[in-house]
Amino acid sequence: MADQLQNYFPGLEGVYVNESGMSSVDGLNGRLYYCGYAIEDLAAHCNFEHVAYLLLHKQLPTRKQLAQFKDDLIRERYLDPHLKAIIVLTPRHGHPMAVLQALVAQLAMHDPELADKSIEAKRRKAMRIIAKMPLVVTYFDNLRGRERTVVRREDLSHAANMLYMLTGKVPTPEEERIFDVALVLHMDHGCNNSTFTCRVVSSTEADIYTAVVAALGSLSGPLHGGANERVIEMLESIENLEDIEPVVTDMISQGKKIMGFGHRVYKTVDPRATILRKMAEDLARDRRDDHDLVKAVRFMEVTRTKLDELGKTQIWPNVDFFSGVVYKALGLPKDMFTAVFAIARVVGWVGHHFEQVETNRIYRPRLLWTGRELGTPYVPLKDR
Amino acid sequence: MADQLQNYFPGLEGVYVNESGMSSVDGLNGRLYYCGYAIEDLAAHCNFEHVAYLLLHKQLPTRKQLAQFKDDLIRERYLDPHLKAIIVLTPRHGHPMAVLQALVAQLAMHDPELADKSIEAKRRKAMRIIAKMPLVVTYFDNLRGRERTVVRREDLSHAANMLYMLTGKVPTPEEERIFDVALVLHMDHGCNNSTFTCRVVSSTEADIYTAVVAALGSLSGPLHGGANERVIEMLESIENLEDIEPVVTDMISQGKKIMGFGHRVYKTVDPRATILRKMAEDLARDRRDDHDLVKAVRFMEVTRTKLDELGKTQIWPNVDFFSGVVYKALGLPKDMFTAVFAIARVVGWVGHHFEQVETNRIYRPRLLWTGRELGTPYVPLKDR
Repeated sequence: MADQLQNYFPGLEGVYVNESGMSSVDGLNGRLYYCGYAIEDLAAHCNFEHVAYLLLHKQLPTRKQLAQFKDDLIRERYLDPHLKAIIVLTPRHGHPMAVLQALVAQLAMHDPELADKSIEAKRRKAMRIIAKMPLVVTYFDNLRGRERTVVRREDLSHAANMLYMLTGKVPTPEEERIFDVALVLHMDHGCNNSTFTCRVVSSTEADIYTAVVAALGSLSGPLHGGANERVIEMLESIENLEDIEPVVTDMISQGKKIMGFGHRVYKTVDPRATILRKMAEDLARDRRDDHDLVKAVRFMEVTRTKLDELGKTQIWPNVDFFSGVVYKALGLPKDMFTAVFAIARVVGWVGHHFEQVETNRIYRPRLLWTGRELGTPYVPLKDR
Repeated sequence: MADQLQNYFPGLEGVYVNESGMSSVDGLNGRLYYCGYAIEDLAAHCNFEHVAYLLLHKQLPTRKQLAQFKDDLIRERYLDPHLKAIIVLTPRHGHPMAVLQALVAQLAMHDPELADKSIEAKRRKAMRIIAKMPLVVTYFDNLRGRERTVVRREDLSHAANMLYMLTGKVPTPEEERIFDVALVLHMDHGCNNSTFTCRVVSSTEADIYTAVVAALGSLSGPLHGGANERVIEMLESIENLEDIEPVVTDMISQGKKIMGFGHRVYKTVDPRATILRKMAEDLARDRRDDHDLVKAVRFMEVTRTKLDELGKTQIWPNVDFFSGVVYKALGLPKDMFTAVFAIARVVGWVGHHFEQVETNRIYRPRLLWTGRELGTPYVPLKDR
């Protein structure tokens, strides 16, 4: 028992489970690196395809490699008619994350290389997953009667095509740039719960599709990717700026979790929140509408002040706090926010899948027995 | 770094992640308990419904409770026509495990109580998942042209109905009994990979369906539930009994994993293998066909002898070794073996989901950084 308690790590806090060269989070200093490069540099200079290449190949691409990578992604930018028919039959009220989970599982069965376990085939499968996930949710969104025709454009980037398919308008260069940055910021983040889920499933030598399907389930959770949708719902539920203080006071005194605040690893500002706030400001200026932004900033300031008063100086806004404001300003449906997160994070998932299978050991932890005494005599049904 | 290495547990071996009263595995003595009761007693006296009640309620049922539980399961023994239409569109060559993953994700969206997070609603959702999973795979199997009409029978037990739908024949009492025992033996097994996956996803407060979908992905892996199918394939690939010795010698000398042998926890005979072997013997006697059984036993003996010679005295046949022989004798299609495992194990998954959310802490471990130096200067695209 003493032995067990010594190795008892609820939530696996502080436990190292494998090795990685994908991303590193410095929670004390509020720094994030992808493959060694600072997230600020990548956000400033690279779009979705550029950083996806980096995370999948652990190397910044040359111009030629990047062009090839873009072509490869565009070549997979289509959905099989059978798959579309299944989306048509999928309940319209379904949450886009549930739709993604159901349809990526179907995509697996449509992949002609499903049984091929070579690393090359796996890489092609990863490209298909990355290319087709946005199509699944945008096609589904279109069926919900948003009165526009979704036809993929092969001349647009990954980010621009997705924005186009969700809003019906070709985005301005600024909108495309902001959406690209949002995607880049969400691509990977150490051993977060969905990435860990992907690794746990991958460790059984299960197929890459199946590992992504599992990770989607994790990301749908309110304590993980589901938070960005909740943040905007919370902000929208507050009508006036002067209501913010009593609302926050109430939430804190009732011990409620404040969505978009706090992080297991960051003990200071999440560097992604800083970049996202800047983008929310750019969009507000551009749109001449800072209604949501002003509310979000006020909410953040009030919450920080209250937390400081309670001595909780390590709880800061995380990536989910401003991403909702940005997505809403870009015209995305609220219930699509977590799916957008998934469409970015899948790059990290597949990268971690490759890392896991390289140095694999199946995850099989233990549970402390706190149940009925072992060997309790069985009582026949007639005597109960 | 020293700190990190001290807490580095590849595969999480020996790490305790939460508390549980579901099942306990005594690997040194080869004992398994569900809720404190010895597996041998439960296998001898209880069918699927009986043990499912135990694992979900942590209590053996009274006669009345058991009757109610059976009724509740039978009431959910149907599939929505929309769902059937989706199964019709699902690729016929799809593996039943992939079909299950895709369709349980769809089931979620068809559940009228999906958004209800109360424990009572969750229990009803759990019953729906348990009742409908066999219908999904049997309906799919029927579409593959096995020339029989699958209409569920409400007068049959969970095990008998499933056998009936897969074989087209109402099973004899002995067949039903053996299938029941096989299901009971597979229901739960400590913190195995799929159960852990279910707990990891559940820890984000994600829905119970989504956690089951993730666990299905894990169970599909060749190192986990996929093994029983591989065992029978391996046995079938050996034509004559005298070929067994050279085949085993080859596999061992090439360091290949022998499917159906070895277990992270058991260092002696897996008690489930003992019971399954007995059932395989009963079936062989009944069928007057011991072809597969004789081959399996010879394979086991040869492998054990060879391993003993190498000093590997702790590698024994596990649950997967004889389950395939039993399922084949019962007339189940080979690619259905892992799905049968899933249909039993789902009882454990949902039980662990309830345990996890009761004492929840989100799983968020760490990864040791072994990648490029952090803060490596970014090189502009034009300079690469």
